[in-house]
Amino acid sequence: MASPKPAPTSPSTSSHFIKKIDPAMATATTRSGKPLDRPVMESMLRRRMFYTPAYEIYGGVSGLFDYGPPGCSLQANIIDLWRKHFVLEEDMLEVDCSVLTPHEVFKTSGHVDKFADWMCKDPKTGEIFRADHLVEEVLEARLKGDKEARGQKIEEKEEEDCNKKNKKKKVKEIKVVKLDDATVQEYEEVLAKIDNYDGPELGMLINKYGIKNPATNGDLEPPIAFNLMFQTAIGPSGNLAGYLRPETAQGQFLNFAKLLEFNQQAMPFASASIGKSYRNEISPRSGLLRVREFLMAEIEHFVDPESGKKHSRFHEVKDVELRLLNRETQLSGRTEVETMPIGKAVEIGLVDNETLGYFLARIKLFLEKIGVDQSKLRFRQHMANEMAHYAADCWDAELLTSYGWIECVGCADRSAYDLSVHAKKTGAPLVVRQTRAEPLKIEEWQIDLDKKKFGPRFKKDGKTVEAAVLALTQEQRETFAGQLKANGKIVVEVPGVADGNVELGSDLVTIEKRTRVENTREYIPNVIEPSFGIGRILYSLMEHVYWTREGDEARGILSFPPPVAPTKVLLVPLSTNPEFTPIVRRLSHYLRSVGISNRVDDSSASIGKRYARNDELGTALGITVDFQTVKDGSVTLRDRDTTKQVRGSEEQIVDAIKKLVDGQETWADVLKRLPEYEGQQNVD
Amino acid sequence: MASPKPAPTSPSTSSHFIKKIDPAMATATTRSGKPLDRPVMESMLRRRMFYTPAYEIYGGVSGLFDYGPPGCSLQANIIDLWRKHFVLEEDMLEVDCSVLTPHEVFKTSGHVDKFADWMCKDPKTGEIFRADHLVEEVLEARLKGDKEARGQKIEEKEEEDCNKKNKKKKVKEIKVVKLDDATVQEYEEVLAKIDNYDGPELGMLINKYGIKNPATNGDLEPPIAFNLMFQTAIGPSGNLAGYLRPETAQGQFLNFAKLLEFNQQAMPFASASIGKSYRNEISPRSGLLRVREFLMAEIEHFVDPESGKKHSRFHEVKDVELRLLNRETQLSGRTEVETMPIGKAVEIGLVDNETLGYFLARIKLFLEKIGVDQSKLRFRQHMANEMAHYAADCWDAELLTSYGWIECVGCADRSAYDLSVHAKKTGAPLVVRQTRAEPLKIEEWQIDLDKKKFGPRFKKDGKTVEAAVLALTQEQRETFAGQLKANGKIVVEVPGVADGNVELGSDLVTIEKRTRVENTREYIPNVIEPSFGIGRILYSLMEHVYWTREGDEARGILSFPPPVAPTKVLLVPLSTNPEFTPIVRRLSHYLRSVGISNRVDDSSASIGKRYARNDELGTALGITVDFQTVKDGSVTLRDRDTTKQVRGSEEQIVDAIKKLVDGQETWADVLKRLPEYEGQQNVD
Repeated sequence: MASPKPAPTSPSTSSHFIKKIDPAMATATTRSGKPLDRPVMESMLRRRMFYTPAYEIYGGVSGLFDYGPPGCSLQANIIDLWRKHFVLEEDMLEVDCSVLTPHEVFKTSGHVDKFADWMCKDPKTGEIFRADHLVEEVLEARLKGDKEARGQKIEEKEEEDCNKKNKKKKVKEIKVVKLDDATVQEYEEVLAKIDNYDGPELGMLINKYGIKNPATNGDLEPPIAFNLMFQTAIGPSGNLAGYLRPETAQGQFLNFAKLLEFNQQAMPFASASIGKSYRNEISPRSGLLRVREFLMAEIEHFVDPESGKKHSRFHEVKDVELRLLNRETQLSGRTEVETMPIGKAVEIGLVDNETLGYFLARIKLFLEKIGVDQSKLRFRQHMANEMAHYAADCWDAELLTSYGWIECVGCADRSAYDLSVHAKKTGAPLVVRQTRAEPLKIEEWQIDLDKKKFGPRFKKDGKTVEAAVLALTQEQRETFAGQLKANGKIVVEVPGVADGNVELGSDLVTIEKRTRVENTREYIPNVIEPSFGIGRILYSLMEHVYWTREGDEARGILSFPPPVAPTKVLLVPLSTNPEFTPIVRRLSHYLRSVGISNRVDDSSASIGKRYARNDELGTALGITVDFQTVKDGSVTLRDRDTTKQVRGSEEQIVDAIKKLVDGQETWADVLKRLPEYEGQQNVD
Repeated sequence: MASPKPAPTSPSTSSHFIKKIDPAMATATTRSGKPLDRPVMESMLRRRMFYTPAYEIYGGVSGLFDYGPPGCSLQANIIDLWRKHFVLEEDMLEVDCSVLTPHEVFKTSGHVDKFADWMCKDPKTGEIFRADHLVEEVLEARLKGDKEARGQKIEEKEEEDCNKKNKKKKVKEIKVVKLDDATVQEYEEVLAKIDNYDGPELGMLINKYGIKNPATNGDLEPPIAFNLMFQTAIGPSGNLAGYLRPETAQGQFLNFAKLLEFNQQAMPFASASIGKSYRNEISPRSGLLRVREFLMAEIEHFVDPESGKKHSRFHEVKDVELRLLNRETQLSGRTEVETMPIGKAVEIGLVDNETLGYFLARIKLFLEKIGVDQSKLRFRQHMANEMAHYAADCWDAELLTSYGWIECVGCADRSAYDLSVHAKKTGAPLVVRQTRAEPLKIEEWQIDLDKKKFGPRFKKDGKTVEAAVLALTQEQRETFAGQLKANGKIVVEVPGVADGNVELGSDLVTIEKRTRVENTREYIPNVIEPSFGIGRILYSLMEHVYWTREGDEARGILSFPPPVAPTKVLLVPLSTNPEFTPIVRRLSHYLRSVGISNRVDDSSASIGKRYARNDELGTALGITVDFQTVKDGSVTLRDRDTTKQVRGSEEQIVDAIKKLVDGQETWADVLKRLPEYEGQQNVD
């Protein structure tokens, strides 16, 4: 029944959410393992301006958010690490391509025709519903009503929205109506497959289950496809239609020939791009997870399909263990992951090839580096019906959040699809030409025609006959060669000429087996595409590192690893004593000069309050300047997570900070080297 | 005659180009002082993929470009230095705001009504011309024809286009027609002021000079305003109109209240934003200088208008010398710059205030740091008619290129305009509330009304009368207080009540002079806005650092300072000898681990060719691994600009590279420390 959802795009930010939550992990937890109170956390994130709804003083626009200073810095740090981990480490060719894209490009790529979601309109009120969301909400509400009628406890639905405007559910009241058991089962089955229905199927469900506009009970029009690309007109005439790109990939494909030239014709190589993309979601929800404007980081790794998609550095990662959720497990309705080294997964054919496997491992290592909780990461293989028709294999890195498992990185083998369609449309040679180490000798049946005699014989049909003869396959040629030898003539089918059959004698045609030597090989590379939704990673990471201290649940802590922490160091003078001011100022300046971001808080609030504010901001470390500092220049260094402090000379402390921020050392290492300090500073 | 061009936006990428080129500098030069051959340079920049027309295999779209690997890296390095120089150095609050913006925001800011250029349509062919460009081209062509008729030499027009599609001039043939002297003078005057005409004025010029469609000689419709914002629809209903922002500023203004809160209410402070903006230019030209999608970096420095706009760090920059082209000089038709310390410029009132002056100096220091030729930098003050009506003062940092003086950074005092209009429209309090150090005592005439008697006396008119009385000015109150004292009654004008005059006795009203104490001050901050067009800076910089070596003019060199060079180090093994491979690989890995981008070229091309390629890419340094390296581990280091080499141990060389890349040392410093090497490596 389910048919493939149109997905001609990179999958990283597609609209696919896994609804079935692994029961063992149904409840999102904080870093310390307690249940995550999302409204409390989100209120903190907004108060500290990690992000904020855009245009809020104008009432806001769904699906648009601004990042405030800590969010912006966190994003920059994640991007910086991404660039080092992928682009610099592997000499990828980074490009920055236009967001504005002319119609023709996305017509060719398939986005104009297929990049759509299904929506239903209420003709009376003009309201528009995303069809799959509506079916989902209505059936879930009915199941809830049934549970209530049966006197069962109702769990709060996980998928709530953080944006006030979006919080409004379509279904406002739950009717307490008992359903029969078969209906309950049917609804549950539909919900499990909700992402796989196409428009006509959703229309059938809406009819079958009598789904109406929940507010007015009005009838809905059948679902129609709504293209998710933002459209605009380029230039003053309004004649050149353009779109905002929904992914960065196409710009990289269109520049393939130039990139290959830049790379001095060497294969394989990868291009990479970091930039904004846009999708006009019908009903944005889930806060930062489904938005209309988002930052992507995409890699297009171009590889020779005849190489077996081997990767020269695969041996470096083959022992990296991944938690894999394969296709077969999902088909049987289960969600258990299997942990295995990527080397084995490729060996047994679970992951299609080394290059794909290499990137899955590198993605895991990257997510680990930025602080993702490894127990909340899994790699889920796409089902056959989820993948685009041309894709060879596809895995998503999914992160567990309070919204369920969220697809944050897609890693697909796109085969030669994109380069092929653009080359076909434009005639541009998006191919690799390679001198063969050994010239290739090809034995084949070749046809020679005596063209001088063709004209007088066939007149205006000459070209047609010639084309028909040259189009003969190797098998046909072999057969005809035999007939020609035996009978001195052959009869070739040429539709539209004479009675459709044309007789050719050996005076006109020769067919012989000969050897051809090919010195150059020409091929269209295949593409492995790791595609990162930076906003989703950023949000999931914030959930993973969030926690509260025992006994102080009102205050949050964001335990970002020092390399990604928005600010590395907080500088606090013990009091407003003027003797501290020049010391703090000099230290701040010095840290900045060695590239360590820091903030001074010399307000009159207590040390404890100042640190608490910065724990919420995720500031990794704190330096206190006190009376001892005035005497001997020593300062204390505080670790955000343990609140423990050490004391040392300025040089020792700065050295420790540098190593922590570069990821070379952990706090435990610092504790071994420097004496722990238990002074008054940590008092609230 | 000239009237102010609508300019409600930040000026950094506005459409203002200075056409009058300082005669002393009319010819653009390379870094070595030779005439710049722009087509040769641009061909190199494209061949090396610094940039490339976007969608070229689809025929391209005017005004859209992609950056290839070196351009992308150069851009990232400029941005990185910008962030360090401005954001980190001054604890600015960086934000990342949405590009998609709802209609209402730009309606309020004035962009919907005024952010437009003038265009003329040929109703027969449908062709569209940007009115000022058309008048300019036609008159220039006529002047050229006149010169030819007079037998004078014609200089090639500077403003040519690098994009093939744009290269097509509207005026294809120059008619050799002699004009009378008065007409020549008139045309020249019009051309000098071409940027200052509004639509109706351009229409008058088109009529007066009989300007037609150059291709068909067809009549043109009068100029109409064409809004330069790209429009789209947000959401599925199509009812919410949106635009792509033409500047990043508005997102910062709308978040003002949250940013102030984040900054713990402390003033002054600055926000900053780096991101793409979009302008639907009618006829993009001048390559990277006038494009439809571009990267901006903008600062909004919020300051108390009553502070005199002092800046606490002004003393640090007061001796920085700037080349200033002031308003008066321009008014008299001249372009001489005056060089003076910014301290003096502020002191004599040429630059309006310290904060503006501080940023002008900081802009200069930034441009210097990235390698801009200081003799090709000037600060031009806006003429009164160029500035938006609300602007207090505005200076552009202009860079001299082969296209003339190009506005690359704008630095405007936007007063309280933006915050005021958004606050007025939305009711959001975009203000600073400040506890007064000393409570303010205000002596004023206060009115007390006996409200109990008001009702019975005036019935339904009570409120109207009350409002009229309380609306009296201080002057009126003083007068009435005297009358009340003298006559025991006053007659107040109250339109719509009785005959429009109402008598009030001292039983109903008391007017007394009293002292009121105000503890809080509330004000709307003013905004100083430095606004950087990164693409324009990047292109101008490439012109400034481009040159060719004596005797080898076919090969270009881009002398980027090491901190901005796209790649820092080229690693070349002397030959394809396999002994070199592991050494090169290890060195490359080590350099990368200490954050130094490098590329290996182990192709079989000669060392000279490999270095020449990287000179064109602007790679700052080169390491050669040779047979000596195999013996003792020493390597040579080559300086791109002098082609001189030194030899040292790996540690010495890496240390030298680090210092060069951080900008701590110059090549001259390295030469003093390490022995110069004259081996075979530099041979072609």
